Amino acid sequence: MTGPHPAVAAVRSAVRRLLESLEPPDRVAVAVSGGADSLALAAAATHVAPRLGLAVHGLVVDHGLQDGSEQVAADTAKALHAMDFTEVQVLPVEVSGPGGLEAAARRARYEALRKAVPDAMVLLGHTRDDQAETVLLGLGRGSGPRSIAGMRPVDPPWLRPFLDLPRETTVAACVALDLRPWQDPHNADPRFTRVRLRREVLPVLEDVLAGGVSAALARTAAQLREDAEALDAIAARFTGEPDIEVLAEQPAAVRRRVLRRWLLERGVRELTDAQLRAVDGLIGEWRGQGAVWLPGGLEVGRAHGRLTVFQPPR
Amino acid sequence: MTGPHPAVAAVRSAVRRLLESLEPPDRVAVAVSGGADSLALAAAATHVAPRLGLAVHGLVVDHGLQDGSEQVAADTAKALHAMDFTEVQVLPVEVSGPGGLEAAARRARYEALRKAVPDAMVLLGHTRDDQAETVLLGLGRGSGPRSIAGMRPVDPPWLRPFLDLPRETTVAACVALDLRPWQDPHNADPRFTRVRLRREVLPVLEDVLAGGVSAALARTAAQLREDAEALDAIAARFTGEPDIEVLAEQPAAVRRRVLRRWLLERGVRELTDAQLRAVDGLIGEWRGQGAVWLPGGLEVGRAHGRLTVFQPPR
Repeated sequence: MTGPHPAVAAVRSAVRRLLESLEPPDRVAVAVSGGADSLALAAAATHVAPRLGLAVHGLVVDHGLQDGSEQVAADTAKALHAMDFTEVQVLPVEVSGPGGLEAAARRARYEALRKAVPDAMVLLGHTRDDQAETVLLGLGRGSGPRSIAGMRPVDPPWLRPFLDLPRETTVAACVALDLRPWQDPHNADPRFTRVRLRREVLPVLEDVLAGGVSAALARTAAQLREDAEALDAIAARFTGEPDIEVLAEQPAAVRRRVLRRWLLERGVRELTDAQLRAVDGLIGEWRGQGAVWLPGGLEVGRAHGRLTVFQPPR
Repeated sequence: MTGPHPAVAAVRSAVRRLLESLEPPDRVAVAVSGGADSLALAAAATHVAPRLGLAVHGLVVDHGLQDGSEQVAADTAKALHAMDFTEVQVLPVEVSGPGGLEAAARRARYEALRKAVPDAMVLLGHTRDDQAETVLLGLGRGSGPRSIAGMRPVDPPWLRPFLDLPRETTVAACVALDLRPWQDPHNADPRFTRVRLRREVLPVLEDVLAGGVSAALARTAAQLREDAEALDAIAARFTGEPDIEVLAEQPAAVRRRVLRRWLLERGVRELTDAQLRAVDGLIGEWRGQGAVWLPGGLEVGRAHGRLTVFQPPR
């Protein structure tokens, strides 16, 4: 008896390991676009979940953004019906709202997936290559450790078992299982930043740095996530109104996290790093300076040894 | 009366701010290669240091690696003699030893600069663009937050006042001051990874992410450095032999830092992330597993509730 193809074994084992590491949910769902990543995920999940005693639902989102999207969704659902799913659903969504097409589509998709199967964990097919792109996008934004820490493997209800697998493994698994992935034309559209990162930046980086860049980016992201989680946990011990004397003794990274959370709780929105540093200066570099302006017409100032957020008089 | 050119004002103010933020040293030195960054630094330092009552030494390292390097060093020293230096020295160094030419040259250079002026802080001309390249190099290595946190502005005896300034500001300052920077042919040599990052990767990344990448990378590096410093400070409280019960309650990022330091103290060299995670598994995922192999023929195991590093019998 020969075992499964190595790529098939790899995708199954990734799903099994992640599911076994959790408090077992009653049911899992798989988000399937019809591309190689999610098709391989569907095949792996329908192999693994029944063996763990879990119901497994297949979910196909139809964004209605491209001609024939309905047909793509129906074809994908048909491929899923040939697998061992408890149930398969097509979820048509309406893409609208602010922030550009990509962001609106993502919002609609996640909302539909979250609601489709109550209490289910939802498996997503993001691979190590998606993670590398996410890290580079975050770097380009420059909004700090949080933005380059990438996607988390466990982020309830979302589960991402493939974050350590290269995309080519999912493609190989589909070939070995005779699955025919759909080629999303958006994945080749250079209007999308992510597509250009994948096609233009990562190959050059890979060449210049002599290989292994996606793995390196993903590994770094994992460590940054742990660092950020540790600091978040430490900062979470400081609740309520900031105590200036206590905070002044904390390392800057802890102090700013505490201040950031407090400001967001007080209704401040979209705090930049520069604004946060200015607020922090009221503690660490206090020399009687005036209040700091924040977005949304608010200010934060120090008086009588306390920090206060207030709405300045017009 | 008109003030100085904005680029000249920017380089001077960067040097002044960094020097004023420190316990004032008695004397500073400036490392000058003759390129635009370090020439602008020399001009800024000789303007600022005397006003702060500091002696300022100009140091020119001659690596002896290129034909005519002696002449380049002599020309650079001549340019420095026209500035207000307390003293100017040329430091010929011998580049040798393991790890490739770039690494050997760096070692020889830093060693000579460190010894040239006893008790001096040494100003280095690294710019925001150098920082961006360093961060990308670290990313490519994938050796974690430490490797992408980049260079520190204050890392005694080294001071890097220009880490927030783009390279173009130092070039503009040289033009405004009628200084003629030397163009190091190594800076255009595609055999150097750093050169290819600068010429091939960063422009593509800049284009794809629509600008501001160097600044974003440098900003992210600064935040990562603060995060790493905070976690290092927290981990430093756990001294001596690791207490398994105490460590088990710490976040992973703290636990691994404590273990890493302890293993290095016990003589372990070049610990990979995978090895560190395996050792951490002896605490967090203990199920009676065997010892973990480490580089240098050492092993670490858990027995009777303690971790021990030992040399296994042959």
